[in-house]
Amino acid sequence: MQKRIKKIQDFLAQEKIDGLLVLNPSNRYYLSKFELKDVQYNESAGFLIVTLDDVYLFTDSRYFEEARRYFEQDKIFIYAKDKFNYIRDRLKNKLKISTLGFEYYYFPYEFYDHLSGSFDLVPTKYLIEKIRQIKDERELDKIITSNKLVSEVFELLPDYFQEGQTEQELAWFIEKFFREKGALELAFPSIVAFGQNAAKPHALPSARKLKKNEVILIDIGCRFQDYCSDQTRTFWFGDKPSTDFTFNFNLVVKAQEKAINFIQPGREIREAYFLVKDFFKSYGVDQYFTHALGHGIGLDTHELPSITPKNENKFEPGMVITIEPGLYYPEWGGIRQEYMVLVTEKGARII
Amino acid sequence: MQKRIKKIQDFLAQEKIDGLLVLNPSNRYYLSKFELKDVQYNESAGFLIVTLDDVYLFTDSRYFEEARRYFEQDKIFIYAKDKFNYIRDRLKNKLKISTLGFEYYYFPYEFYDHLSGSFDLVPTKYLIEKIRQIKDERELDKIITSNKLVSEVFELLPDYFQEGQTEQELAWFIEKFFREKGALELAFPSIVAFGQNAAKPHALPSARKLKKNEVILIDIGCRFQDYCSDQTRTFWFGDKPSTDFTFNFNLVVKAQEKAINFIQPGREIREAYFLVKDFFKSYGVDQYFTHALGHGIGLDTHELPSITPKNENKFEPGMVITIEPGLYYPEWGGIRQEYMVLVTEKGARII
Repeated sequence: MQKRIKKIQDFLAQEKIDGLLVLNPSNRYYLSKFELKDVQYNESAGFLIVTLDDVYLFTDSRYFEEARRYFEQDKIFIYAKDKFNYIRDRLKNKLKISTLGFEYYYFPYEFYDHLSGSFDLVPTKYLIEKIRQIKDERELDKIITSNKLVSEVFELLPDYFQEGQTEQELAWFIEKFFREKGALELAFPSIVAFGQNAAKPHALPSARKLKKNEVILIDIGCRFQDYCSDQTRTFWFGDKPSTDFTFNFNLVVKAQEKAINFIQPGREIREAYFLVKDFFKSYGVDQYFTHALGHGIGLDTHELPSITPKNENKFEPGMVITIEPGLYYPEWGGIRQEYMVLVTEKGARII
Repeated sequence: MQKRIKKIQDFLAQEKIDGLLVLNPSNRYYLSKFELKDVQYNESAGFLIVTLDDVYLFTDSRYFEEARRYFEQDKIFIYAKDKFNYIRDRLKNKLKISTLGFEYYYFPYEFYDHLSGSFDLVPTKYLIEKIRQIKDERELDKIITSNKLVSEVFELLPDYFQEGQTEQELAWFIEKFFREKGALELAFPSIVAFGQNAAKPHALPSARKLKKNEVILIDIGCRFQDYCSDQTRTFWFGDKPSTDFTFNFNLVVKAQEKAINFIQPGREIREAYFLVKDFFKSYGVDQYFTHALGHGIGLDTHELPSITPKNENKFEPGMVITIEPGLYYPEWGGIRQEYMVLVTEKGARII
């Protein structure tokens, strides 16, 4: 935690910023352990102020007790009525802040409106998100444990599939498994898609019943000890897989393998995407690969780096990413295979 | 839906605003049925533009199929790379917008930065939230069904309580009940608190085991067909309730009854709060009542109106609110009773 904060403070010193306001919940949690999530969209649990030599929390009285677990009492500021007057006063007079950094993508206009007259506001972009890309040992342990639950349920599933079962029933079986094994929640709404539904990269489980001789695509993950997991498998339910299924399944598996073998520190992230796109192109199917190749994963299911044609950054040891090529055909369904992968000093390792 | 949009459009016409940008997910859903939630904090499913004569959706390609269920194709704008150039162009040239309203509390600085140079930006505060306060028949039906599940589980619980059971086990029993009855999710993290934990208004379920002769406080709700429910009951587990329990339980029940009997269209919302506060004061316990008396509930668990000393508005027929007085004593626990109440033409009805 101290290392993480030190990185922010070095940045602040270099940019001559007196303090950074952090209200993205995952960023807030990453730097303090305080409240990983807000209870609802319009209700923030509060924000941090990272100064050159300390970290402070601004929150409301409901969170005081929780805040005390992670902050000394004099580092906690409780706002009530007249919230922004209070915030302005404490920032200026207690913390001696005049130049205030903020998170460009999340800072609400309300905050801008109340603070821009009193501080030099400096937008920062993905400052904490970039640090979060590189996982430390403890984070990695948690991610691996979280991901192990996903692998475990995938072992069970083939025996559980049954004709007439609905997508929703299967999704609930999976969720119960995660929860009963100690997961806090799903990492994202499960995708359990039969037949043509598998052609939609973001299908929600429906009341559609499983029929013989069709595709089952399952994209699932859980949050365990705060960290997210995310894997996908595509199954054939029935006797002998169709030619379409077998052909595309083999291509997707091969593409995934190629991408994972390609990954190395120093190589450009987008090159992994192009490798897969070009491989599909050589079989004339690249137009059916319609999304990114993968994404970073950690406190959020989707975090940096994105494995897209736009990403000019390089792979670095400690990154945890998904590799999830897919091919989708509205007539009969789709295939996606997704593993989580750790970038190591020498290459990449499936976790 | 048309009525809701008409109200917004009347406001826009009156304020000479060409279009309103709506990105709060509950507001977005309320006006379009498109995506009640964003998948994670930093990933918006898109936003609406309500113009004087229509409603448009801006989203990314992942949501196109879902969008088509609620919008004609020419009302959907898909952004990709160069997102804000695209948005600016479509707003200006297709939709002929020059004055653009936005949601003061949620509009991210990123949007402000990209749009303020090209449009007259006009903040709006709680415009849609105020319309959402008054529920129509269909919303009310869904809220009642959602709330019925909570009442049902409260019927089962006393037989299920068992010495040695943990708060977490009980919370999972409740959640499974909701989900197996068709609820989409919990409306908020369940509060299941034994003994002293009941003194914390926002306790999270722990591994603490239930002992004989202590308090059980349970504050739970689910989301069913999109609508939230929220109720609290406090139980005594054991033989004969302690004097403290009985005394405070009776006061809280009485306070709740008084508040519900007080509610009438035309009466000030804050007066309900003061009535309870004063009632507790007459018994010398008002300092143990530490939170609001209640809140509106609907697509969000917490929405307008808040039943607080600050709220100078009046009760109106169609409001659905919680009434939840509580008294908290760190030494032994706390009591809270919470019902959901519909404001009718003549008074208030527990639902």
